[in-house]
Amino acid sequence: MLPYQTLVVIEEKSDLSVYRQIANSLISLIQQGKIAPGTFLPGTRQMAGLIHVHRNTIINAYNELLVQNWIETLPRKGYRVILELPLVKPRSFRPGTNYDESLNDNDFPRHRLPQSGLPDIPSHIDRIIVNDGLPDIDLMPFKEIMKEYRMLVKSPELETILASGDNGGSVKLKNATCRFLNNSRGLNITPDKIMLTRGAQMAIFIAVGLLVSPGDEIVLSDPDYIMAGEIFKRAGAVIHRITADDDGINIDELEQLLSRKNIKLLYLVPHHHHPTTVTLSIGRRAKLLSLVNRFKFWIIEDDFDYDYQFKNKPILPLASGWHGGKIIYIGSFTKLLAPSFRLGYLVGPVDLIKQAIAYRRLIDTRGDVIMEEALAILIDTGRLDRHIKRSNKTYESRCELACRLISESLGHAVQFKKPDGGLAIWLKFNECYPLAKIISKAAAAGLVLAGSAYHIGEDKKHNGIRFGFASLSEDELYKAVAILKQVIA
Amino acid sequence: MLPYQTLVVIEEKSDLSVYRQIANSLISLIQQGKIAPGTFLPGTRQMAGLIHVHRNTIINAYNELLVQNWIETLPRKGYRVILELPLVKPRSFRPGTNYDESLNDNDFPRHRLPQSGLPDIPSHIDRIIVNDGLPDIDLMPFKEIMKEYRMLVKSPELETILASGDNGGSVKLKNATCRFLNNSRGLNITPDKIMLTRGAQMAIFIAVGLLVSPGDEIVLSDPDYIMAGEIFKRAGAVIHRITADDDGINIDELEQLLSRKNIKLLYLVPHHHHPTTVTLSIGRRAKLLSLVNRFKFWIIEDDFDYDYQFKNKPILPLASGWHGGKIIYIGSFTKLLAPSFRLGYLVGPVDLIKQAIAYRRLIDTRGDVIMEEALAILIDTGRLDRHIKRSNKTYESRCELACRLISESLGHAVQFKKPDGGLAIWLKFNECYPLAKIISKAAAAGLVLAGSAYHIGEDKKHNGIRFGFASLSEDELYKAVAILKQVIA
Repeated sequence: MLPYQTLVVIEEKSDLSVYRQIANSLISLIQQGKIAPGTFLPGTRQMAGLIHVHRNTIINAYNELLVQNWIETLPRKGYRVILELPLVKPRSFRPGTNYDESLNDNDFPRHRLPQSGLPDIPSHIDRIIVNDGLPDIDLMPFKEIMKEYRMLVKSPELETILASGDNGGSVKLKNATCRFLNNSRGLNITPDKIMLTRGAQMAIFIAVGLLVSPGDEIVLSDPDYIMAGEIFKRAGAVIHRITADDDGINIDELEQLLSRKNIKLLYLVPHHHHPTTVTLSIGRRAKLLSLVNRFKFWIIEDDFDYDYQFKNKPILPLASGWHGGKIIYIGSFTKLLAPSFRLGYLVGPVDLIKQAIAYRRLIDTRGDVIMEEALAILIDTGRLDRHIKRSNKTYESRCELACRLISESLGHAVQFKKPDGGLAIWLKFNECYPLAKIISKAAAAGLVLAGSAYHIGEDKKHNGIRFGFASLSEDELYKAVAILKQVIA
Repeated sequence: MLPYQTLVVIEEKSDLSVYRQIANSLISLIQQGKIAPGTFLPGTRQMAGLIHVHRNTIINAYNELLVQNWIETLPRKGYRVILELPLVKPRSFRPGTNYDESLNDNDFPRHRLPQSGLPDIPSHIDRIIVNDGLPDIDLMPFKEIMKEYRMLVKSPELETILASGDNGGSVKLKNATCRFLNNSRGLNITPDKIMLTRGAQMAIFIAVGLLVSPGDEIVLSDPDYIMAGEIFKRAGAVIHRITADDDGINIDELEQLLSRKNIKLLYLVPHHHHPTTVTLSIGRRAKLLSLVNRFKFWIIEDDFDYDYQFKNKPILPLASGWHGGKIIYIGSFTKLLAPSFRLGYLVGPVDLIKQAIAYRRLIDTRGDVIMEEALAILIDTGRLDRHIKRSNKTYESRCELACRLISESLGHAVQFKKPDGGLAIWLKFNECYPLAKIISKAAAAGLVLAGSAYHIGEDKKHNGIRFGFASLSEDELYKAVAILKQVIA
């Protein structure tokens, strides 16, 4: 309810009677759009109490509004502002259009961000969504984590837990994440070198915010994770692009850049690269580490998809080798957990972590500490590891099936390589099948291709899209590929 | 488990026998710290499977490690790396110290952020925490919102809901927030003028990130919300401070600044100001709106605490007056909801909202869409409004009690004014009671003063702290004030 007690102004010294003053105030509020058409006014008794006048005064005021056709009475419901107002145009000011004026470049001094190219997701149920590579909701340990969450909410330690989240995240989860990373990736770190974030994206944003100034030269691959590229553009970085092949980024090209330019930082997804799913080979990793030690540039190692490995032959992260603290290691629990709950981490030198924690507080005071503690319990009891193993089996067989169906039905139109992990396939369509057309035709046929698509501007040459197979059942995979076959026919 | 299959390197052409190569690899991993002291190695059969050699080869390798005293056998448990290693110093490289080197100013080109001054919260139960002004967990509608959450997770629409969060938040919650703001604050906006965030803090960060460039001149009050000030410092803004009294900021000072300087933006908490809890008077609001229309500067109106009103006489936000789109309106649901779940909103011109949505995706891909939808249900069914009313009654009586106790016991040592809403009291200690001392003495006596404290550097003159009364029971309020009385005695 609107604060009528402050909105309705009654002046004791006015020539106008009190009921007329009230009526005029209400009319003015209706004209300004503050009381919207269709709104029920408070009952006469309630309104009288709110603005401290006799009830009869309100009855007189409402009658005035009725006579002037601003409100109507509905039996047993009360007084309603009529839906079609006689004069809705406000007179002296126009709050309804406050926010309709467009802004100029003076308002946005920096790099203007591109609008989303995300397709609309229809809500009817018999359409299939192929996402960017998300896990299957049904396989996520949602019930388990919510059970721990509920128990924590009832725990006598809740107050302490809630008060503890401001220093880079839950202490228990920082400890558990350390053990998790040391055991699975050989990082050999301690909790003072870790900060929790809302997923890998926030970790990248924070690392770039701390390290990159306008004019700094940085290196990305072509193609590379779009949302990382946008962060660097906004930070005013000068971006160099190097090529990549089936062994990952071209380290010789990188070496040439390092020799010629003053390179501050390399951003890299060495496992199941986004978007191409390629993994950087062991040989190139060794070479890259030697370059770090020689040229002392920073690396942001974005390892968001490390845990989804099918061949059981993971390569250790670059950050587990010797790099003198120059590799910021970033990962994510988001895809291992409950749907729509986001949680990631950033590993780096103690000095940088301290700054990152202070910076994160400015961006987003704290995370969901209770959920963080619940996850710590899942890690410490080995349930997260078991969950990862179990779901990898399902995802591997879905990946096999998806690749077989794509070869059989679309082999003439696309190029792709079966990934050895991760939750998506990188599908490059041949030139004669422009991706924009395929996406719109597929949508019309009930298939929403919502994965990252590379088909605009500089990315046009890739004509590729991520095909997230992991969240699709066998039946849906058959249907999705069948629709695609029909679309390119 | 570590990925031994890729860590243990066997070269077929080596002069060394396979079992010696395996033993050497493992020793090297132990030396590097990748296999930590106390770790159990995989059983011989499992290890043989992992690296594709005969089990006897592994037995030979493990025997070599036993002989060299790198590992020990534990009956029925297996092979464990010994806890006190003969030579833990790594030889060729030192991954354990990767992150221990300190960084220089070259690494952090911008404003270095201050470390947290947050006090440690002891975990034993018989201490009392006085926070910055948080709601009482027991009064939050946690069960209600979790019930809706669980139903949404089971709903057939879940996939559509999850896919819909990338465009400024859940569509349902944007619509519900619009109705909520129009009904309670007369904003008269449509959903295209709103974006959801993780609380008011993220909304401020995004608004400043879009509007403020290095060198821009902006206005804060003295004192003002510390975390907003830090955002402006990081953005490179030139900060002017104006004074405030019991009616809020000094508008005449502001007018002088606007006349003399090229002011881009004013940040303002007009209801229950942080930290002082003062509300900007109606007269000054009218004057401020006329200044906006005359000088065309931006205002960030941070109304994080609007919903907690005791006197039931709220004043409408500045944003509901006519300002030509120059007032970014920011608010928060965080304090109305489940503990540790953060959610806020930003209202502004359509153009700015589009940029803000794109910027938010770079910072934090998306929010917890399921929780957002659950909140929309609470708003649409009127349960949020009822919850706000109910808890305000409790908070008002706690506020009364807190103020009475403070006057009675601390009246000679502090200045304060009873707030007409919000969840904290602004306590200014007289000069002879330096705040730092009071905080540390209170902590020793079991009272953690965790509210925002203004007693360092320029803030020293305020010598004040926020006393969050809302989350304390009557009993705790009595105890807290009694400890404070004893501390200043």
